[in-house]
Amino acid sequence: MKQLGKQSWEFTTRPVILGASAVVGPEEGEGPLASDFDFIYDSLEMGEKTWEKAERALFEKASKLALMNADLEQDKLEFFVGGDLMNQIISSSFAARKLGVPYLGVFGACSTSMESLAIASMIVDSGGSKYVLAGTSSHNCTVEKQFRYPTEYGSQKPPTAQYTVTGSGCAVVGVNDGSGKHPYMLTATLGKIMDLGLTDPFNMGAAMAPAAADTLTAHFRDTGLTPSHYDLIVTGDLATVGLPIAQTLLAEGGIPMEETVFKDCGNMIYNMDKQKYVIAGGSGCGCSATVTYGHILKRMRKGELKRVLVVATGALLSPLSYQQGESIPCVAHAVALEFGGETR
Amino acid sequence: MKQLGKQSWEFTTRPVILGASAVVGPEEGEGPLASDFDFIYDSLEMGEKTWEKAERALFEKASKLALMNADLEQDKLEFFVGGDLMNQIISSSFAARKLGVPYLGVFGACSTSMESLAIASMIVDSGGSKYVLAGTSSHNCTVEKQFRYPTEYGSQKPPTAQYTVTGSGCAVVGVNDGSGKHPYMLTATLGKIMDLGLTDPFNMGAAMAPAAADTLTAHFRDTGLTPSHYDLIVTGDLATVGLPIAQTLLAEGGIPMEETVFKDCGNMIYNMDKQKYVIAGGSGCGCSATVTYGHILKRMRKGELKRVLVVATGALLSPLSYQQGESIPCVAHAVALEFGGETR
Repeated sequence: MKQLGKQSWEFTTRPVILGASAVVGPEEGEGPLASDFDFIYDSLEMGEKTWEKAERALFEKASKLALMNADLEQDKLEFFVGGDLMNQIISSSFAARKLGVPYLGVFGACSTSMESLAIASMIVDSGGSKYVLAGTSSHNCTVEKQFRYPTEYGSQKPPTAQYTVTGSGCAVVGVNDGSGKHPYMLTATLGKIMDLGLTDPFNMGAAMAPAAADTLTAHFRDTGLTPSHYDLIVTGDLATVGLPIAQTLLAEGGIPMEETVFKDCGNMIYNMDKQKYVIAGGSGCGCSATVTYGHILKRMRKGELKRVLVVATGALLSPLSYQQGESIPCVAHAVALEFGGETR
Repeated sequence: MKQLGKQSWEFTTRPVILGASAVVGPEEGEGPLASDFDFIYDSLEMGEKTWEKAERALFEKASKLALMNADLEQDKLEFFVGGDLMNQIISSSFAARKLGVPYLGVFGACSTSMESLAIASMIVDSGGSKYVLAGTSSHNCTVEKQFRYPTEYGSQKPPTAQYTVTGSGCAVVGVNDGSGKHPYMLTATLGKIMDLGLTDPFNMGAAMAPAAADTLTAHFRDTGLTPSHYDLIVTGDLATVGLPIAQTLLAEGGIPMEETVFKDCGNMIYNMDKQKYVIAGGSGCGCSATVTYGHILKRMRKGELKRVLVVATGALLSPLSYQQGESIPCVAHAVALEFGGETR
């Protein structure tokens, strides 16, 4: 591994994604990316008695399918790097119990998808393992209950509110054998905390936009690349409110982003015209994870995308820090995925 | 970095601890290790309005002192790897906001001390950074309130209950320049989830003991070493209930541990004869962190200890998983520190 500038790493051995999975709930299954997901639950309960047990089932299903898609038997797996939005990341820890391998729990709120992928890539790149599973999950009813109100209340929401994605995405990261058969990780840019003083838990997009802009700026500074290097640059869950803010901040900083290239997973996962209940768009750890590991990787394998930068954003608030009048510290972690094109 | 066996890494460049800090509360300041701590608060409030704000102040103080002890200006620091026991690891995230460097949030409950040190060591060892801060914290009143009862209730506790350490420990991990001036990290062994079905949040020691035994067994298997290699093997917070269980499990597995070498930070930090209110002993992220970064590192630098294995244990429960009748998944992560002796 090589340090690039202040915030970035180049994975010199180009670790690959041997296989990945995206498992979602019924609402994501009605969205435009439905055919890219590996499994769609037809109810939010998923046959479990509590929302938390349902989220765990979701995560376990995704980890199992990722191993299957990677054609890797479970006893070959060596490490698991995972996290989620639940207090004490219980969904991830219970999934780890089923996997039976050394487990590194991580937390970056919704940026956990790329935080775990960056750490898994580092482990493989530095020779620490041959097979590492990276993954995360979120469930609409666990997250809304924990951070805002139980969905059963039916409380009204402002137009800036986002809708937590029910979904889990996992990827098996492995050594690059040079065969060119799999998408690989080239660089990662780790984010600093950005906190501009916003305190509204119903407006995560605006709170997280500066973190996305900051990490993107750092990525281009550290790597010497420009946005045109990428076929697609996706943020995690800025949705309709946050994405234009990030775009404005980047433009003001001298980094204009084309609308055809700069997108957000929270806008992509739902049919924004029909699924009006998602209000400003999708959010949650499962948002960027399922869109990346379901939709984007499949498009890369088809040759439709060669270079993709995923910038997962996270709002690191707790209900308690919010109740104590604290603002919302945000972070964004980016991982560059490439496949089929020339390496730099 | 080199993978050893199934669960361990050897840090081939031997990253060093350039400087570390241990900041504690008044009760730890009355214990036998008081003179090894860098700062002792004289009240649990620490001049703040809430316990959570106090814990944050504690963490921020420790991160500042670690940089000072490492003789590193804050703008030279490149990464921060941290976590804590609070929901959404807010203490760590707020400390990260002050530090202003890329931040990887981690969660391993009380094993976070060694999880963060292992990841920081990997980053430096693999060339990803020159200066990484690893740290964690816990505060008696935030943790007891969140996981059991607010201390203000004055509820009675069973004899197996442990006492959450108020403390934060941080270490600045850097590149080994070969000068031999600093203790260095040689190996890490990452733990698997161990869950033997225990469900009592007032008996963490018994729940975590199998995880400690499992990680120690893996460590000796992967490295080919025996316990006699080490001058000291310390578990994180098994305390008086858990340590003998771990010892029995290890003996049954053919790894007898000498009582003079095998100790627990939760027994070391308090004066168990006088400070009866700690019941079974210390616990919390701050327990292994302050004992390691305060006491053990100072003894290493004095030449009293050359080879130390720290096995931090974590109970990955949440109040909610416990209320839903789940058992307690546990994990233990070990890092081997050496100084002044011959390398293998």
